[in-house]
Amino acid sequence: MGIEDFISNSVGTWISMRTGHSLAFKHFEEVVSTLRINLLNKNDLRVNILLDKSEYSNRKANHPFEIIWESESDWEQKENNTESKGSCVLIAISTSDNEGIFIRSQGYTEKILALSNYYFLDDGTIVITTDYEQTTAEERIWFASRNVRCRASIIRSLNTKGILQTSFASEIRKISES
Amino acid sequence: MGIEDFISNSVGTWISMRTGHSLAFKHFEEVVSTLRINLLNKNDLRVNILLDKSEYSNRKANHPFEIIWESESDWEQKENNTESKGSCVLIAISTSDNEGIFIRSQGYTEKILALSNYYFLDDGTIVITTDYEQTTAEERIWFASRNVRCRASIIRSLNTKGILQTSFASEIRKISES
Repeated sequence: MGIEDFISNSVGTWISMRTGHSLAFKHFEEVVSTLRINLLNKNDLRVNILLDKSEYSNRKANHPFEIIWESESDWEQKENNTESKGSCVLIAISTSDNEGIFIRSQGYTEKILALSNYYFLDDGTIVITTDYEQTTAEERIWFASRNVRCRASIIRSLNTKGILQTSFASEIRKISES
Repeated sequence: MGIEDFISNSVGTWISMRTGHSLAFKHFEEVVSTLRINLLNKNDLRVNILLDKSEYSNRKANHPFEIIWESESDWEQKENNTESKGSCVLIAISTSDNEGIFIRSQGYTEKILALSNYYFLDDGTIVITTDYEQTTAEERIWFASRNVRCRASIIRSLNTKGILQTSFASEIRKISES
């Protein structure tokens, strides 16, 4: 599977059951959210602004897409955190058949423009690593079936490399979309 | 990483935070358990009995080990399920550098002798598939660090191949052991 297949297989609306494990505190966090993944046109203004902001402004945005999410988290409700919906624009630029970079208009853990590296394992799992200001995230996503995606993440402290949190999401495609 | 490294890296006592996602019911199950993984002697009586019961009685049990677990599950408490501790003996027989089989004295989801196939992905992740009577399980285990193991499982109906449950465990080595 290359990046083009990965993105086209991901297009649609997904119900995500996600669990975070805070290792130091043995704390579980459960979140149910809806994700919508849409392809974007290469001429989309947001795509061109994002490319211009990045160090890849001279590259062709081969595979732009957006993710729109809305979540309900037990933990977020407790903390009165209202940041439970949002969207980001992503551009994939492949550097070889099985690796490349993503430019994201905002990261998941820190709200800044983020660059990620990705590569594919030999079974088609994509492994995405992103350095943020304080943390580094490794995400691996694989398709359990056409309509179920699994996503496991490890968040490390950028300084100490200590593992702060792991998380796992089971993403089920809304069948009306399939 | 070959099977020998995988097993020797896994020896020790682990605190496991495990979450099950029942996809049809959007139900989360959380379990904290303690796992102890010990190497066994090739002449251990339990190893020889297990080999004799299997179709591999003429094979050399290269890498026998045992897993002993004790769990506390919110779901199990609700259901008055007392099957929260147990142990199993496993024998790994490699058929090539990066694949082989496990013989287990009991499976995790059905309490019978189980045969699993394993292979390693190019990043060292082990993928283990096991057919039980009603279900088939795919487990993938990778080391996030020397002291943190991640384990993601997908349980499918053997007949329909529909996905019944996914689960994810973060396993943290007890530091006194490291």
